[in-house]
Amino acid sequence: MKAREIAEFLSAELSGDGDIEIESVADAATATAGQLAFLERPADAVETGASCLIVPPNLPLTASAPAIISAEEPKLAFARIAAKLHPRKMREGGKHPSANISPDARIGEGVFIGAFVCVGDGSEIGDGTELRAGAMVGDNVRIGMRCVIHPNVVVCDGCLLGDDVILHSGVVIGADGFGYVRDRDGYVKFPQIGIVVVEDHVEIGANTCVDRGALGETRIGEGTKIDNLVQVAHNVRIGKRVVIAAQTGISGSTVIEDDCVIGGQVGFGDHAVVKSGAVIGSQAGVLPGKIVRPGVWWGTPVQPLDEYKRQNAYVKSLGRLRETLREIERRLGELEGNSRK
Amino acid sequence: MKAREIAEFLSAELSGDGDIEIESVADAATATAGQLAFLERPADAVETGASCLIVPPNLPLTASAPAIISAEEPKLAFARIAAKLHPRKMREGGKHPSANISPDARIGEGVFIGAFVCVGDGSEIGDGTELRAGAMVGDNVRIGMRCVIHPNVVVCDGCLLGDDVILHSGVVIGADGFGYVRDRDGYVKFPQIGIVVVEDHVEIGANTCVDRGALGETRIGEGTKIDNLVQVAHNVRIGKRVVIAAQTGISGSTVIEDDCVIGGQVGFGDHAVVKSGAVIGSQAGVLPGKIVRPGVWWGTPVQPLDEYKRQNAYVKSLGRLRETLREIERRLGELEGNSRK
Amino acid sequence: MKAREIAEFLSAELSGDGDIEIESVADAATATAGQLAFLERPADAVETGASCLIVPPNLPLTASAPAIISAEEPKLAFARIAAKLHPRKMREGGKHPSANISPDARIGEGVFIGAFVCVGDGSEIGDGTELRAGAMVGDNVRIGMRCVIHPNVVVCDGCLLGDDVILHSGVVIGADGFGYVRDRDGYVKFPQIGIVVVEDHVEIGANTCVDRGALGETRIGEGTKIDNLVQVAHNVRIGKRVVIAAQTGISGSTVIEDDCVIGGQVGFGDHAVVKSGAVIGSQAGVLPGKIVRPGVWWGTPVQPLDEYKRQNAYVKSLGRLRETLREIERRLGELEGNSRK
Repeated sequence: MKAREIAEFLSAELSGDGDIEIESVADAATATAGQLAFLERPADAVETGASCLIVPPNLPLTASAPAIISAEEPKLAFARIAAKLHPRKMREGGKHPSANISPDARIGEGVFIGAFVCVGDGSEIGDGTELRAGAMVGDNVRIGMRCVIHPNVVVCDGCLLGDDVILHSGVVIGADGFGYVRDRDGYVKFPQIGIVVVEDHVEIGANTCVDRGALGETRIGEGTKIDNLVQVAHNVRIGKRVVIAAQTGISGSTVIEDDCVIGGQVGFGDHAVVKSGAVIGSQAGVLPGKIVRPGVWWGTPVQPLDEYKRQNAYVKSLGRLRETLREIERRLGELEGNSRK
Repeated sequence: MKAREIAEFLSAELSGDGDIEIESVADAATATAGQLAFLERPADAVETGASCLIVPPNLPLTASAPAIISAEEPKLAFARIAAKLHPRKMREGGKHPSANISPDARIGEGVFIGAFVCVGDGSEIGDGTELRAGAMVGDNVRIGMRCVIHPNVVVCDGCLLGDDVILHSGVVIGADGFGYVRDRDGYVKFPQIGIVVVEDHVEIGANTCVDRGALGETRIGEGTKIDNLVQVAHNVRIGKRVVIAAQTGISGSTVIEDDCVIGGQVGFGDHAVVKSGAVIGSQAGVLPGKIVRPGVWWGTPVQPLDEYKRQNAYVKSLGRLRETLREIERRLGELEGNSRK
Repeated sequence: MKAREIAEFLSAELSGDGDIEIESVADAATATAGQLAFLERPADAVETGASCLIVPPNLPLTASAPAIISAEEPKLAFARIAAKLHPRKMREGGKHPSANISPDARIGEGVFIGAFVCVGDGSEIGDGTELRAGAMVGDNVRIGMRCVIHPNVVVCDGCLLGDDVILHSGVVIGADGFGYVRDRDGYVKFPQIGIVVVEDHVEIGANTCVDRGALGETRIGEGTKIDNLVQVAHNVRIGKRVVIAAQTGISGSTVIEDDCVIGGQVGFGDHAVVKSGAVIGSQAGVLPGKIVRPGVWWGTPVQPLDEYKRQNAYVKSLGRLRETLREIERRLGELEGNSRK
């Protein structure tokens, strides 16, 4: 792709050599000839060997390249062009002879089915989807179009995936939720007979678990992105365009509304509600039933970031506070001594 | 099943239409005709379309249904009848032709062996157990009767599972523990040659790891339930009827006695002991060697819940405390001024 | 092996019966005839049935055995001899007929390829490596010599493993990193086209995830040991001989230098740097961009252990501090009363 074509694709302004050929993308710091890189801030001084740089508009540049493309959001522009220059490897449709596909499963057009894949009775796989090696799809599962189900993913009976869903290796969708009722002798399993619904354009990271609803459904909304090793318990409802970083755990029936951003290793008690647009910092803890309003939240139990910082500063100054107290006692003792005279 | 039969099965009292047919269970809020639901508290006002409701006895009802069953513990009764109305799918005995079973493994009666399953030399699978697709069973493993080993589970060499054990997808039983001895050049592996013993009626959630003992065994006691993504290190001993929520991590040689309840994302240092009946809140941290007595514990390092709450309240009031201090200083200064006059 | 041979192998001093036969290793407390055990401190009073004990030199012994070996570091000596007495099961070279190996993959001498293994186009497997059942190796992967890739591991396209690497079951190497750019409608995937490099003698625990670099590489240095369920994000660089306990999460581009020791459930923000030799306690939290110097660190946000302990003590004494404050107010009130007279 020529630099000029890239600029056109991005509807962005080009200066310099529009004919220069771009083959791949790279970090500005390591890019070499034939590569495209980006700078987020013009102050990012960098020596780059890139043939083309995407930079913010109207600002003095500290790096140069044969071709310069101005874009309001260089990183976004870079991500878009990278997807074009490095399309994911598309596997051709077809079924590996080792795969074990139920005769009454409905397999769409151009579906790739790798080695050692299983698809159970009554399941349906949409056009252009890839079930990579070792992916296990249970009975009565519906997977939409153009999904990529990576090696060794498990999608259990009855679960529903939309279009353009990506499940990375080791993901388990639809294992039983964790629900028991105590009786005299031990624990009786509460029914775990619901399903998981994963809407369109969701991406779920490696070894993440999304449990089926106990009675109803567990739902991941459209465009939501979940990182690795996350736990999503039964009957959780996650809205659209939510981002959840690695190792966060969400207990049963908690609701995370649209456009929330959740850090890593956050813990949510059950039946909490996170209102649309809230941002929760890593390692925070949300108590059961808590309602988290929009804003930035931090700590355990979660509190507004400002409050968290203030509290932290108070705790940090406890040593000084104790000294002040001792000094006060000294002065007080002196006054008392005087008054007794 | 008729409402009357359900009441009989539960040895509970029925009022209303005993002949009404019940086909499935549901949440009271979403139940429709032919469904059974439950209310835990009579105050749970709900409009329900359920044909039959299980409710606590002797209390005014805020919801109605054609048939009403009174039970001391409605949720428990509901779980019991749900297990009857929604029995788990039993797979018929038989071995998928693709499975790779050692000729000297001993496979019981009515064992289901799915596609791409491996069973190693000298292993033994009890009657009625299901090894679902992609389950990997090593050498000299013993799995009891009526177990369900879900897709892509790994049970490593020498490990022992009792009867009625459920391992959800991605569980790894018997990987090497994490033990090394530092020498001049790096780390030398400490032997990890023990085993894992999982007793009867244990259920282990998706992607949870239970490491083998270094020299002895790691043991999960009868009736214990472990959620997803939990880490159980080498030589840990977990008692009977323990419940452990998701993403908790238990370091080497720690003991959790019978009937403990452990929240999610709790961390246990090594060689800790949690006494029978203790309850530990989510995200708590237990220091190595700590002995946790019965009671409710919270925070890092764990402390009794009351203390934790009091401490938290103190920290929350630090702002006010600082103001008090300033006020005291002001008054003190005034007194000092007066006394100097 | 005779006790004498063991002493010779360890270049250690033997007293007692050098001819006694040792067949296996065990804990001192449970060892029986024919077994070797060790004591780390001479004060470890123990009744042992071991035939041979490794003990620290020149100190009065509280346990006895037919043969006693003195070693400066008994645990290290024990680990060394255990590796000799209990060599890991070596699987003979050969390919299971069910395995799905690309015709242009290069497979070394004596490579074991288990059932249902996949190796993709252009990949290379070094001599003596074991790919156990269900291991999934993508395209253009390079795995060195004598590695053990346990059942159901996934190594994605383009990733590089050195020699003597051990990956436990469920490990995912090279899934896409978690990187998106927000635009008006949702999240655009940032390119995840880098690789993972795992150097020699690295061991990675069950269900741990190491994401590929976004543009460059994610690297795990030589001799580093990582426990189960750890998250290593894109472009993280971990040095040599680093130890990381279970369930720790490391965000993008963070650097952990050589010889660090990281506890379990630690969270690292992105772009942090942990300097060589730092020790970070379990459940600690490291803020994005933080530089952690050598020393022992604890808490969230991390602080030097001493400071953490002092702070903790201060918080613990807040109840007393409030009482002191009330007492001061009382005395102050009295003085004020007096001065008003």
